[in-house]
Amino acid sequence: MEIINRIPRMISIARELRSEKRRIGFVPTMGALHEGHLELCARAREMCDTVIASVFVNPAQFGPNEDFEKYPRDLARDAELAFTKGVDLIFAPALDDIYPEGFSTYVTVEGLGDRLEGASRPGHFRGVTTVVNKLLNIVSPHFAFFGRKDAQQVILIKRMVRDLAMDVEIVVVPIVREEDGLALSSRNVYLSADERKAALVLKRALDRCRTLYNGGERDCSKLISSMRSVIESEPLARLDYLAITDTARLDALDTIPFDQPTLISLAVFLCDTRLIDNIVLNGEI
Amino acid sequence: MEIINRIPRMISIARELRSEKRRIGFVPTMGALHEGHLELCARAREMCDTVIASVFVNPAQFGPNEDFEKYPRDLARDAELAFTKGVDLIFAPALDDIYPEGFSTYVTVEGLGDRLEGASRPGHFRGVTTVVNKLLNIVSPHFAFFGRKDAQQVILIKRMVRDLAMDVEIVVVPIVREEDGLALSSRNVYLSADERKAALVLKRALDRCRTLYNGGERDCSKLISSMRSVIESEPLARLDYLAITDTARLDALDTIPFDQPTLISLAVFLCDTRLIDNIVLNGEI
Repeated sequence: MEIINRIPRMISIARELRSEKRRIGFVPTMGALHEGHLELCARAREMCDTVIASVFVNPAQFGPNEDFEKYPRDLARDAELAFTKGVDLIFAPALDDIYPEGFSTYVTVEGLGDRLEGASRPGHFRGVTTVVNKLLNIVSPHFAFFGRKDAQQVILIKRMVRDLAMDVEIVVVPIVREEDGLALSSRNVYLSADERKAALVLKRALDRCRTLYNGGERDCSKLISSMRSVIESEPLARLDYLAITDTARLDALDTIPFDQPTLISLAVFLCDTRLIDNIVLNGEI
Repeated sequence: MEIINRIPRMISIARELRSEKRRIGFVPTMGALHEGHLELCARAREMCDTVIASVFVNPAQFGPNEDFEKYPRDLARDAELAFTKGVDLIFAPALDDIYPEGFSTYVTVEGLGDRLEGASRPGHFRGVTTVVNKLLNIVSPHFAFFGRKDAQQVILIKRMVRDLAMDVEIVVVPIVREEDGLALSSRNVYLSADERKAALVLKRALDRCRTLYNGGERDCSKLISSMRSVIESEPLARLDYLAITDTARLDALDTIPFDQPTLISLAVFLCDTRLIDNIVLNGEI
């Protein structure tokens, strides 16, 4: 149990672990750990010999008007939680070490990164794939764990890893929800009591979609309009996007196919707080 | 001595070498090997336990009107030459393995990649940094060897490696020249006898610059205009660009500083064949 700040030390520990043939599991986070993250850690603990979690609030994936400044930060609490879940090492690099003077290299997944979240948050995924690429280079894990809550992020990272032949396997972990169905998110702490109640509308819309789907509905425009009416019934909620897409190209679908995984994803504002959620029909991403 | 085509096999061999603590040296090439490449191989042989050279003509670094189709290819000859110089393994992947269906991930070095060669060849460096990133992931060398002839390429790759914390050291090897001074290039084979003679104008211009510099001239506009007049004196030559820049940001300089390495670089067309050359004053890149 140790918190490592410097990149060269993290690299040398990771290389040493590799040479000892220990299987390294990696859980990259922006801190503000919740049960969703801890589920990633627990999964890594089951599968690997050494579990490393990173805590780095990555400015490159926040837009200019987003919540980088106010994003919750509490490394001591995060470390305690993570160590309780069996994490062996925390890697918490400084901003200037990840983005040194003159930093100018970016990793982008074209096409996939411009849709859904990418359309609402220009540059977001460039920031994500760049920092994840760098963290994977530093930690050199055998397995890296990501939550399916950020479905598009998972799809992009898997594509990056495949395209660049990175030597790591991406493990996707199901969404963890509060008892009432709200998907866990570090941003849930921003919600007022009223917004917290209203936030259930995301899950309700997705449940409506699944119910209709189970009843035989395959027409995406009907599914979307019925989800939209669920969102619109909640006065505190403002829909950002709502999409039914395939999981390989994130192309919008007209009809849900019977033999391909299909991603139903949405983003909703509760006042200033933007939440996302999704379900996958017919398989997994 | 073996030619490896498949990425998974190259990865597994490289990981095995790593775990045996052998130092891996890597020489990425597009084939059409000449003494310049062989110098890289020889340097790798001196420094490393296992030397791997790749042969891959990378379409992503050619522009639509460039010479991808006619670029010389002769793997058997390349392999023989490389093995003679002590290369242990050749990695010659197929196009579809490097760029599989749906490939969409690119590594770019912003700013640096848009200048000089990048301005004349839009997209060129995106292709270079993307494929080099992937090759480095596959081969996982301790050292990778590049010729200073492609000075801007070296500067970009060093930046990429630093920015993304890639676990490799870039070794820069001096330019190898024909006896009469022409820098070796796989594209020299395109030159007619007259163009071959005219091609000496690149080195003559650089020599003129160095002579003036040694005589105390520090004014870049004077140095450039005197190099330009050398190029213009050769009827078969057409100047593409000529620049005096620093080596960190590739910013054009007014005056050559006394304490910083300075790159003098140029590109010249001889009919349809585009050649580049450079010198570095006050140090190395």
